Amino acid sequence: MRSLIPFAATEPKTRLAPVLDPDERAAFARVMLSSVVETVIAAGLEPTVLTTAPITEPLPAAASTVVDDQPLTAAVNEQLAADSPTLVVMADLPLFRAADIHDLVATDADLTIAPGLGGGTNAFCTRAPAFRVDYHGASYLDHCEIAADCGATVETVDSRRLATDIDEPADLAEVLIHGDGPAREWLVDAGFELDTGDGRVGVRRS
Amino acid sequence: MRSLIPFAATEPKTRLAPVLDPDERAAFARVMLSSVVETVIAAGLEPTVLTTAPITEPLPAAASTVVDDQPLTAAVNEQLAADSPTLVVMADLPLFRAADIHDLVATDADLTIAPGLGGGTNAFCTRAPAFRVDYHGASYLDHCEIAADCGATVETVDSRRLATDIDEPADLAEVLIHGDGPAREWLVDAGFELDTGDGRVGVRRS
Repeated sequence: MRSLIPFAATEPKTRLAPVLDPDERAAFARVMLSSVVETVIAAGLEPTVLTTAPITEPLPAAASTVVDDQPLTAAVNEQLAADSPTLVVMADLPLFRAADIHDLVATDADLTIAPGLGGGTNAFCTRAPAFRVDYHGASYLDHCEIAADCGATVETVDSRRLATDIDEPADLAEVLIHGDGPAREWLVDAGFELDTGDGRVGVRRS
Repeated sequence: MRSLIPFAATEPKTRLAPVLDPDERAAFARVMLSSVVETVIAAGLEPTVLTTAPITEPLPAAASTVVDDQPLTAAVNEQLAADSPTLVVMADLPLFRAADIHDLVATDADLTIAPGLGGGTNAFCTRAPAFRVDYHGASYLDHCEIAADCGATVETVDSRRLATDIDEPADLAEVLIHGDGPAREWLVDAGFELDTGDGRVGVRRS
């Protein structure tokens, strides 16, 4: 199965600006990408990083890169038009595990989709050659509708790990709580720790 | 298997104050409770609602109530001391389904735990008679530690539906996106709809 990992190489993770400066955001995004690449490889696949700009540091030998500076939707759709089936996993899912790929791939549905918190699409596996993405807005709902329009069956994957994309400062708490890889290490090294006040646990930085 | 659904009957869901007035919060909390009770019954169990005050409207015949006005941790621990094994499911999980109970119950672990977003504990099943809860702070991590301290094995359930407790306005978007029961209906009737701006989808009220 072909696997793609879209990656925004230029000024990534702007919503983490309240807690990380631009260089830190770039470094943390790169660590999360490495984590996702390693996880996809551990599942027996050979991922292609679909990046908006060349990646300077080396990736594992089993991974390759394609540079495409188009917006995310156009870049992914160009790839979907070229070949099928395809697994697409976002680069900001440091909690996801090789076993989770099984839930995305081992199904009879034409489209298997793992929604993110807030209605996004964090990962999907399509076997429907006509399926195309539209990442704007509540893309999970849009993708279900697009699949229905092209007669494709849809299965939704119920995974907290796949739902947890790391976009906002509160999301960093999920990495500290549940992570066990390089993204968690990076945050700890950068001085982040859990802040257990009232309500949901957040993060603070020392 | 004994099943408990803790319910805060007095001034529930205060963190929804920005979008719901006190009577609405009470009504919405009651609708979510009904949804959870029905789901547990659909899984073949006969839940006990562990409520801080008597519930006026009737519950299904398969459900019973125990009134205990102690704080959550003390009330649950008194129940755990009385009997084992026990399944405990929070009352603010309108997305969870009867099939999800299988993941909590059908395991060899002494403690199966479904973390909520932000480090809480949304559901657990304990077969360890010595296990006790402590809901303050990052209770998921604390519960793993308490289980280890009493020699109990722990399994973490990876479920977005079980992770999505409804506490804050942004959580309402999850109900509108993924819900298909009375909690979603209540929100739609109250004028809520998805607000697809930048970043994660939120809600607005008409």
